[in-house]
Amino acid sequence: MKIYNGKINLESKNQIEFMDITDKVHEIIDNSGIRDGQVTVFSTHTTMGVVINHNETMLIQDFMRVLYRIVPVEDHYSHDLFELRNSAVRSDGRSNGHSHAKSMLIGVSEVIPIIKGKMILGNRQSIFAVEFDGSRKRDIAVQVIGE
Amino acid sequence: MKIYNGKINLESKNQIEFMDITDKVHEIIDNSGIRDGQVTVFSTHTTMGVVINHNETMLIQDFMRVLYRIVPVEDHYSHDLFELRNSAVRSDGRSNGHSHAKSMLIGVSEVIPIIKGKMILGNRQSIFAVEFDGSRKRDIAVQVIGE
Amino acid sequence: MKIYNGKINLESKNQIEFMDITDKVHEIIDNSGIRDGQVTVFSTHTTMGVVINHNETMLIQDFMRVLYRIVPVEDHYSHDLFELRNSAVRSDGRSNGHSHAKSMLIGVSEVIPIIKGKMILGNRQSIFAVEFDGSRKRDIAVQVIGE
Repeated sequence: MKIYNGKINLESKNQIEFMDITDKVHEIIDNSGIRDGQVTVFSTHTTMGVVINHNETMLIQDFMRVLYRIVPVEDHYSHDLFELRNSAVRSDGRSNGHSHAKSMLIGVSEVIPIIKGKMILGNRQSIFAVEFDGSRKRDIAVQVIGE
Repeated sequence: MKIYNGKINLESKNQIEFMDITDKVHEIIDNSGIRDGQVTVFSTHTTMGVVINHNETMLIQDFMRVLYRIVPVEDHYSHDLFELRNSAVRSDGRSNGHSHAKSMLIGVSEVIPIIKGKMILGNRQSIFAVEFDGSRKRDIAVQVIGE
Repeated sequence: MKIYNGKINLESKNQIEFMDITDKVHEIIDNSGIRDGQVTVFSTHTTMGVVINHNETMLIQDFMRVLYRIVPVEDHYSHDLFELRNSAVRSDGRSNGHSHAKSMLIGVSEVIPIIKGKMILGNRQSIFAVEFDGSRKRDIAVQVIGE
């Protein structure tokens, strides 16, 4: 059994942003030398998520609209008071209670089986690190386990 | 360490459909010979999800209603234009932007620990492959890792 | 390859309750002796979820409010009829169709990589077992795999 830990550094530009990291995950799997097993993609942040779906520009727009509607930015989040009191408000003054709530709904990890050196993604599946509170510098942990 | 990869072939009949695959996952675990470890259930599709919950007919009806309400079919999805332009529209003319959005919210995988040859599911837990854009032929990847 | 199975016993007091189990998961990892690998946190219940986010009192309040709004308690759930017919209604007379629906959206497991004996959680990430139908006695399965 082999274990290989990699990391992907990202820099988001927008408040919500779907960053396709499929190629970078593949690169880490290649570097690991592991041919059979699984890979865990894990966000160590509380205002991000990990999603596997189709990388199609207009679909991503739909995802954002759905997320903004389910968890609106223009709402009262008690957490925003916490950030105010603790001087943890973003430098641009924006609050992020909504970002945490989006992360709670989407989840921070995905596990993908690897067979013969390749993730078994369907041909329309991409792996996205999803920013809910950009812009920010981020990193995503990628762990490969197998042999 | 042993790794065993199986597959479950499904054919959905309805637009949204909860397909109980618990027995089929158990069968793959039995075939793997692995007694201790974990199983990953992974959908390789972008308009499906994987859910673990109670297989009770009326509850499933509730799940569908909640999903239809959170992500309505009768809404404008930009992705539907993409499909039109690319002649990727379903043969029945239905659009599926909503199906992708439901998949994003539910997620495409679950990992379940295995102890002494059995998944540690609670006695009311079933594993569902959830169709969000049926009817279609589908397959679900099942990977057993352990010893 | 080593596999170690632990369990966390909980007792929720409220209908919805975020129970921080991070320290208990760390304790199980310590007991396992496994230094590198991953841990799976799995709820064997159909009206609970597992969430990784910031343990901040006011944020938790926001999470509850968002969950109550997306899946309201005051709604008609067919499942509540099932429970009535099967005399499975809670002793306090409350119905729980909404609790199952919340569980479906949040998911029942998380997988967290372990490096040098520690989960790679970000410094604001806590692991929560989330009660959606309290008060109840609950247990959460924790499986450590690695070496």
